[in-house]
Amino acid sequence: MPELRLNLVTKEWVIIATERAKRPEDFKISREKKETPSFVDTCPFCPGNESKTPDEVFRVSDGNQWKIRVVPNKFAALNRDIERIRTNDGYRHTVSGFGVHDVLVETPVHNMATALLPLDHVAMIIRAYLKRFAELYSDPRIGHVIIFKNHGAGAGTSLEHPHSQIIGTPVTPFQIRDRVEEAIRFFDLTGECLICKTIAEEKKDSTRIILETGHFISFIPYASLSPFHTWIFPKRHAATFSEITETEIVDLALNLKTTLAKFYYGLNNPDFNYVIRSNRTKDARLEHSHWYISIVPRLSMTAGFEMGSGMYINTAMPEASAEFMRKVKVPQQP
Amino acid sequence: MPELRLNLVTKEWVIIATERAKRPEDFKISREKKETPSFVDTCPFCPGNESKTPDEVFRVSDGNQWKIRVVPNKFAALNRDIERIRTNDGYRHTVSGFGVHDVLVETPVHNMATALLPLDHVAMIIRAYLKRFAELYSDPRIGHVIIFKNHGAGAGTSLEHPHSQIIGTPVTPFQIRDRVEEAIRFFDLTGECLICKTIAEEKKDSTRIILETGHFISFIPYASLSPFHTWIFPKRHAATFSEITETEIVDLALNLKTTLAKFYYGLNNPDFNYVIRSNRTKDARLEHSHWYISIVPRLSMTAGFEMGSGMYINTAMPEASAEFMRKVKVPQQP
Repeated sequence: MPELRLNLVTKEWVIIATERAKRPEDFKISREKKETPSFVDTCPFCPGNESKTPDEVFRVSDGNQWKIRVVPNKFAALNRDIERIRTNDGYRHTVSGFGVHDVLVETPVHNMATALLPLDHVAMIIRAYLKRFAELYSDPRIGHVIIFKNHGAGAGTSLEHPHSQIIGTPVTPFQIRDRVEEAIRFFDLTGECLICKTIAEEKKDSTRIILETGHFISFIPYASLSPFHTWIFPKRHAATFSEITETEIVDLALNLKTTLAKFYYGLNNPDFNYVIRSNRTKDARLEHSHWYISIVPRLSMTAGFEMGSGMYINTAMPEASAEFMRKVKVPQQP
Repeated sequence: MPELRLNLVTKEWVIIATERAKRPEDFKISREKKETPSFVDTCPFCPGNESKTPDEVFRVSDGNQWKIRVVPNKFAALNRDIERIRTNDGYRHTVSGFGVHDVLVETPVHNMATALLPLDHVAMIIRAYLKRFAELYSDPRIGHVIIFKNHGAGAGTSLEHPHSQIIGTPVTPFQIRDRVEEAIRFFDLTGECLICKTIAEEKKDSTRIILETGHFISFIPYASLSPFHTWIFPKRHAATFSEITETEIVDLALNLKTTLAKFYYGLNNPDFNYVIRSNRTKDARLEHSHWYISIVPRLSMTAGFEMGSGMYINTAMPEASAEFMRKVKVPQQP
């Protein structure tokens, strides 16, 4: 029997379509194993091709070789060198395209994946996110910062070399405000942070948890919007990513890498997006709102129904998907 | 210089990414012309295979041959034969999967397209939508009805035979409420229906109009969310699709068919979704809210940025796309 579940965080109804449901293993990607080389001469992110990117914002180095580079996106959606100008004639509301659009090259190795990187390298990436997050918000013209990764062509990237993107927009998106408003409503009704409450409920239930580490918990939400849609929540209440401590960074590296490795081995390296959903640095210490990471493997497609309603049809049972993920064995690595 | 534009109807910011912008003709689909037969023996929607679908809800016939069939979806996301039961333990909010999920087979001809159908056949489809829309809303357990079409594999359909879907859900989606709320805010500020205001502004500006017929106007919104994202608005204020008159149905058939034919010929039959966005029948005569049709050709992909922010990056200038569409010649047909 199908069931509708309400995602309290996104305020979206999800139809868990049991009549169409697939087994977790049915989501395994069956594509050919393609051998990708570790270096590609024409790749702008491979070592030796540094001149093919705009001038570096910063790099993380270890002796002679860089480990991570942050560079302006050559095909930036926003322009950091113009004024932020708002206009409004009562109908047309515009802002000039001021903003920052960086690329974070995650590793010199072309055919690497987060799932396969050493733990300390994943921690380095998180530290680089954090540095750039703080820098962007130090500019009062930036309304919101979005840190995200598109992995694979099906997740919207054309460049294979592992990279993330950091975009600072000149406005705060309405969707962000809406979700904070919903969190405030929940707080006003219950006196609890909705995310803290979610963590408590998910731990009590335990059927949807993928991995709990010292400071983070990854799980498939009760009303996950799509198959294997996964959240990683910091267990300590914190409104913004900028509040993360060094101990928590190391633990997040472990949780993120292991969760992605479970996708990599369990579902055969599916395309995915992840995004850090956080309030602004100046919203630190808000009691009702809590930052987190959302991971969306591209295992299904949204169509007219989702577009027209903002509801979702999910053909995977969250509990069965989580059980499958818990059982995926990840080889030990440095 | 990139520019951010606010879509007042969806309340989403769109980055019109001029630095990445493509010319309208660059969006033309370059796939191989595949010859599809007009009849496929294994297709459940082809004539002679009527027994492969669940029992018909109704059909539109012309003598012996049916023209349109409405049947329950064999792989329905919702179940029309169960009770609607809501539960809520303060955290888990559920509704049993009661609801209606129909398929509307648009024509007996397997390789047909809306763009190529005779006008009176398109009008017949709209009348069938309207009939089912009213029937579904006559059940007080139905919270919302979504009528949509997925055309092509890239738009989420696995069945090639032309069909639409009609889903009646047991709840009213939050996204629908949110947009109505925004429309009310606009009405309270200005005393005008936002859609009526949009029509007036788009007619005054005229650069984004694709086609104006007697009762409808199709155009690329000022802040269109994706390349060639198109809206068809009824020019007369009406809160719900159920208020459409017979004269307006005939005119909508002309506008919808011609607009889709411009996609078909101008962009080489792209995959697309369309959806009728309407209030419920009982919301008829609301002064602040106005039904319409949204068409989304699948010419780009959303990724981490859109997921994480609810903002969009559009690489097509709405004005250039509309100019291109206006110029597309559509062969005369019956």
